[in-house]
Amino acid sequence: MKKATLKDIAEYFGVSISTVSRALSGKPGVSSELREKILEKAREIGYTPNLMALGLKKGNTRTVGVLIPELSANFFADIVSSIEKSLFHLGYRLILCSTDDDPVKEREHLQLLLDQKVEGILSAPVNVKENKDIYNSIINHFKIPVVFFDRLVEGVDSDFVISDNREGMEILVNYLVKHGHKKIGLIHPLRGSFTGEERLKGFLLFKDSIEIREEWIRDGRSSEQGGYESFLRIMTSQERPTAIVIGNNLMTLGVLKAAKELNIKIPEDISLVSFDDAYWNEIFDPPITCVRQDPQQIGLIAATILLDRMKNRKKPSPRMQVVLKVKFVERSSVRTIKTLKDFS
Amino acid sequence: MKKATLKDIAEYFGVSISTVSRALSGKPGVSSELREKILEKAREIGYTPNLMALGLKKGNTRTVGVLIPELSANFFADIVSSIEKSLFHLGYRLILCSTDDDPVKEREHLQLLLDQKVEGILSAPVNVKENKDIYNSIINHFKIPVVFFDRLVEGVDSDFVISDNREGMEILVNYLVKHGHKKIGLIHPLRGSFTGEERLKGFLLFKDSIEIREEWIRDGRSSEQGGYESFLRIMTSQERPTAIVIGNNLMTLGVLKAAKELNIKIPEDISLVSFDDAYWNEIFDPPITCVRQDPQQIGLIAATILLDRMKNRKKPSPRMQVVLKVKFVERSSVRTIKTLKDFS
Repeated sequence: MKKATLKDIAEYFGVSISTVSRALSGKPGVSSELREKILEKAREIGYTPNLMALGLKKGNTRTVGVLIPELSANFFADIVSSIEKSLFHLGYRLILCSTDDDPVKEREHLQLLLDQKVEGILSAPVNVKENKDIYNSIINHFKIPVVFFDRLVEGVDSDFVISDNREGMEILVNYLVKHGHKKIGLIHPLRGSFTGEERLKGFLLFKDSIEIREEWIRDGRSSEQGGYESFLRIMTSQERPTAIVIGNNLMTLGVLKAAKELNIKIPEDISLVSFDDAYWNEIFDPPITCVRQDPQQIGLIAATILLDRMKNRKKPSPRMQVVLKVKFVERSSVRTIKTLKDFS
Repeated sequence: MKKATLKDIAEYFGVSISTVSRALSGKPGVSSELREKILEKAREIGYTPNLMALGLKKGNTRTVGVLIPELSANFFADIVSSIEKSLFHLGYRLILCSTDDDPVKEREHLQLLLDQKVEGILSAPVNVKENKDIYNSIINHFKIPVVFFDRLVEGVDSDFVISDNREGMEILVNYLVKHGHKKIGLIHPLRGSFTGEERLKGFLLFKDSIEIREEWIRDGRSSEQGGYESFLRIMTSQERPTAIVIGNNLMTLGVLKAAKELNIKIPEDISLVSFDDAYWNEIFDPPITCVRQDPQQIGLIAATILLDRMKNRKKPSPRMQVVLKVKFVERSSVRTIKTLKDFS
């Protein structure tokens, strides 16, 4: 088979070679509709772009650093997958870094990404208070755009894409209250992380309307193991709550494993709701009621904002700070508690 | 806090600064035991290596390309996570590329990785027969080491780390036969991929000892959706098999969702076994019997082989071709079919 060229694509659409080239390299001057068509055709006929043409010869590395806590967590794998798909056609490649929720490792990664001369950074930072200086220095001194996703660092003036954590907690607690629950526990994500802090705060807003006890609130450290252990601790407290809100999907997995092992029946013995959806919420018996974030959407929006910043590096524009709504998914993991009123 | 230096570490262990430096940069001349201790201490005291010291000044990019079909698949996310952890301490960064099981996209990625001057490539290639030339050219012409994992390309002389696919199929089918099953269906991974071909061949080795029908063998395209559809097709065939072997974990997830939706009881209505373990195998009711691969181990071994090749680029040594054993995990998804013999 003859190797497909830019000329083939240009002839097909009846446009100039330079238009095709602009479209493929993400430069302005081509309508987004035509760009899409050209990209599709290029893929279809197997045109392989030459990175040189895409910018390397101008000293651009066409690499973007991506920092996440842990790739084994589905939520972050889905976001990275979405980022990668968004950047692929424009010739950008991801340099992937896991922080393991360790601020020291995060700093090391950021320094190395600077050495690698990445053109932009997408990060789910470890802690709301740590590494503020290095992020600010990357943005303001090195002039490398940073877009935070899922989490952010206080005091860093950057773009970000997050979910509405407080609204999510509000939906979950209100749902439990509506079903007669007053004694409610919480397994929250790692303290210090943005999502850990926000979801805990969102829960504590209910402190006057529901019964909250210290021993019912546990740090599940965002992990399966942490969820497992937290659930055991809550279930062995002197008095149990009637329902538990679990603050992310890996911790929910840990809780479901513990419940299965100990033969604790959901929702008969305890009702559960989860922040985040996941495979296991759906196939567990009973399936788990939750609020769902949209990792594909988070990745797509974060990548789009970063692309825009990288293209218009010299044009300052207002920060884009996106807060996405979460979606409530009702399943069967909450029982209704009859109150005296119901019997009157 | 004072910034930790190489000197601090050297003093702590009573060795020279150059020994510490060799340990951190993965150079020879330091026992692996001491290297481990030094790495641990460096992390503990927050020493952040300077990439310059690790090789960039010699023109090395310290980047490694990693090609996988799809990051959203847990199996590959776990492998990449393991690779990243293995390479992190030595200052290597991953450039991550998803092929979506598309050989054209695979070729584009490989060309761009060459342009990025990666020092090595780890790849789960798309197809046993495609892109042979480009892999051979990378290895032999560009002298960039390539290590395949999970899959390989026929006719490419490279290192690889795979699981024993045929032995895995043998274990699963023999287990079903031992429980009285003779009519057995198969949902195999994508035809053309190494794992799709090997697992199908492994199953067909039983063609004389079990009853195999064409309509019971379906290509689940390695995906959740493909597993879902394949299961529906098999369950609506004129006569059903009594058991199905499912060829990877995403397809198993699709099958479990379909079974739940259609209220098909496992193992009463049909017995299931799965190649690959996953969260959902464990928490499904009943939990699913399977053979388990070890993605952490696959990632670790592939990264170690690649590191060795990158360090000893000029010393040719025999290919390392690693076939890992799979582990059988018996759970409760297979029912025993009584045969006439049992009643005699």
